Amino acid sequence: MVKFQWISSTLNSFAQIGFQQNRFIGLLFMLAIVAGAPILLLSSLITVQIANLTASLLQVDKTLLNSGIYGYNAALLGIALAIWLPLSPITIMVLIIGAVMTVIIMALWLKLFCFKPYSSPFIVSSWLVIAALSAIDYPFNAFSVTSSGWSLPEAVLNGIAQVAFQQNELSGVIILIALVISRWQCTGWILWAAVSSSLFADILVTDAALIQQGFFCFNAILAILVLLSNPSFKKRWWLLFLSPFACVLLSQAFLGMNIIAFTAPFVLLVYSLLIIDFLKEKQPSG
Amino acid sequence: MVKFQWISSTLNSFAQIGFQQNRFIGLLFMLAIVAGAPILLLSSLITVQIANLTASLLQVDKTLLNSGIYGYNAALLGIALAIWLPLSPITIMVLIIGAVMTVIIMALWLKLFCFKPYSSPFIVSSWLVIAALSAIDYPFNAFSVTSSGWSLPEAVLNGIAQVAFQQNELSGVIILIALVISRWQCTGWILWAAVSSSLFADILVTDAALIQQGFFCFNAILAILVLLSNPSFKKRWWLLFLSPFACVLLSQAFLGMNIIAFTAPFVLLVYSLLIIDFLKEKQPSG
Amino acid sequence: MVKFQWISSTLNSFAQIGFQQNRFIGLLFMLAIVAGAPILLLSSLITVQIANLTASLLQVDKTLLNSGIYGYNAALLGIALAIWLPLSPITIMVLIIGAVMTVIIMALWLKLFCFKPYSSPFIVSSWLVIAALSAIDYPFNAFSVTSSGWSLPEAVLNGIAQVAFQQNELSGVIILIALVISRWQCTGWILWAAVSSSLFADILVTDAALIQQGFFCFNAILAILVLLSNPSFKKRWWLLFLSPFACVLLSQAFLGMNIIAFTAPFVLLVYSLLIIDFLKEKQPSG
Repeated sequence: MVKFQWISSTLNSFAQIGFQQNRFIGLLFMLAIVAGAPILLLSSLITVQIANLTASLLQVDKTLLNSGIYGYNAALLGIALAIWLPLSPITIMVLIIGAVMTVIIMALWLKLFCFKPYSSPFIVSSWLVIAALSAIDYPFNAFSVTSSGWSLPEAVLNGIAQVAFQQNELSGVIILIALVISRWQCTGWILWAAVSSSLFADILVTDAALIQQGFFCFNAILAILVLLSNPSFKKRWWLLFLSPFACVLLSQAFLGMNIIAFTAPFVLLVYSLLIIDFLKEKQPSG
Repeated sequence: MVKFQWISSTLNSFAQIGFQQNRFIGLLFMLAIVAGAPILLLSSLITVQIANLTASLLQVDKTLLNSGIYGYNAALLGIALAIWLPLSPITIMVLIIGAVMTVIIMALWLKLFCFKPYSSPFIVSSWLVIAALSAIDYPFNAFSVTSSGWSLPEAVLNGIAQVAFQQNELSGVIILIALVISRWQCTGWILWAAVSSSLFADILVTDAALIQQGFFCFNAILAILVLLSNPSFKKRWWLLFLSPFACVLLSQAFLGMNIIAFTAPFVLLVYSLLIIDFLKEKQPSG
Repeated sequence: MVKFQWISSTLNSFAQIGFQQNRFIGLLFMLAIVAGAPILLLSSLITVQIANLTASLLQVDKTLLNSGIYGYNAALLGIALAIWLPLSPITIMVLIIGAVMTVIIMALWLKLFCFKPYSSPFIVSSWLVIAALSAIDYPFNAFSVTSSGWSLPEAVLNGIAQVAFQQNELSGVIILIALVISRWQCTGWILWAAVSSSLFADILVTDAALIQQGFFCFNAILAILVLLSNPSFKKRWWLLFLSPFACVLLSQAFLGMNIIAFTAPFVLLVYSLLIIDFLKEKQPSG
């Protein structure tokens, strides 16, 4: 009999940030977040508990709940909003509302659509929250980043850390270890994504600080992870090869439009590829 | 044989503002509007006639037409826009276009969806009209409201009057009589909605003038009326008990974002509850 | 066996601007564009090639591809954006992205919907591109138009030329010839659309320069062409008679809201009529 096991669902919720389902991997992700900023582990633990509790009240499928499917969007939201918003009662209220929203979007998505949401529930919830807070002139945290240069190893490690919205080489090492343990066959592609996106960003963009932070890197890594877990995309090596460049272009486009991209570039890229495949299916009149 | 009877459909259109279908109740609602502002009865009579005429040209079901289903959104729009817009040829044109829009949205909704629209056609049409008029810098009526305090009986009566967008104790008494005649079993819950929303708004908000006007009250009353007419929600007393608090929070959220909420808080609340119930239905894999 | 013939598909793509499918008519449309501004033929030839190539890579139905269905939106986009955007590497990149977007939207539309897209893929792509460029403060070309008066023959010819976004009497003559050759039974209605829209705009609007340019005219012509090709609308002469007035009102509405309308007024009018017809279909309960 399947019961709602909250420790298991919490750990898996963190593992699902990297689209893995394994409690030990989840622990490593939590470790990576603590290494970056302990307060962010606290905020994401709170949103994950609220999300899993909400999902439980909605009487969703217990197996899915335990696998972390209902929690990882809230985890991302808990980290991302705690980075951008100052600590205040409104921020805490917003985290709670946002966490509940991710669950409702996820539950509706699983009922209505036959393709995976990836981190769409997180992106939609975060954008709605940020739009609402902008409308009432709520203050956002400001980040002043300047850098005279960047080094590839640091950019790559920061970029891997950014998968969990961290910016810290130790976090990068821990998440890299987690991904290698979980998907050792993909190690080459993960490194390719991290290296090629950083180098391509350097050609395209002049802002060394952003490259150093891994800003252009984490969407490429997430895209590779998702593409490699899709049997149809996995076979097309040229798609895997080119995906980091597309992610950098999309990240740069969001930057140019002054929109906080979060993981939207990778989600957009994967959906574009899925739409193109859907259109290429043999047509009745073709 | 069912014929298009314009007096009957007009009266029912006004009764449907409170989600009732009874010509005498419709007359009481019209009386409540006259007691508040005679000009608003004129504008809403015009929009209702245009709406029912449009619906008739679209050859909709005569029974629905006579029951006021195609007219109440136009009645709300006729009142709400006449409050916010100065009297001018453009305003009159906008009322006509808006009334036609409510009918087209309603007719499409009834064809495509299996759940009730409540006042969504009115909300969507009004927001589109207001967005378009804002884009051309059309002047809106300004309301300066200041108040050093509020009293519960006045806030409750104004709040009941606000169901038809009036702000006047006599209108409140007339609409209360109409609702009691039509749904005498619900009287307790209606009063609970009015009283609890006013008191909760006082704890949450510092603006006494808005509470006195019944601004936080009418969505709670509409929500109670709709929830009580749904067999599944009616059984859950704690839902009825809590709904006024949710309406106040949603009204405050719209206020904070500087959006004219109209009846959107109550519609959002009811749809959220319907979505949650839809998600809680036994899942195939559960 | 049907093969992808690029000359044929290119010519048909231009003919489809006027919703015709005939290679000679396509040649006349290209001639009309050269007569107006040779650079615009170049830009639209590029976008059409990109669009048809993209469609070909998506392995769409060859017959549709050859008939120009996948190319005319890109042709319109190539002309319209080259008019509004300064020549620069970013503009060229935007033309390429826009052309690919029109094909993806068109392919999705044909898979998902059972009604024609007309020029919706072009309108949606152009608005998205313009919104994105506005967000990054990209400069748009400015047009200063002043005129002390307007003459009907020039307004009519310019208006016909505007079907391909030209503003030039010779282009107007060529497109008129093309339309007369292709649809000689419609000549009377085409002229009615051009003349009545210009005269009605003169009553409604004070800006003689816009009328002289044919700004209020081309949507009326496109609407007549589409309505005449629909067996159900063709029978209703009063609909054909009134459609130019509706197009002028819609064009003026977009102007008032400061939105570049492109062909949106005609598309909105046709969809409104289709929705009304859909709603008027015998209802199960009626």
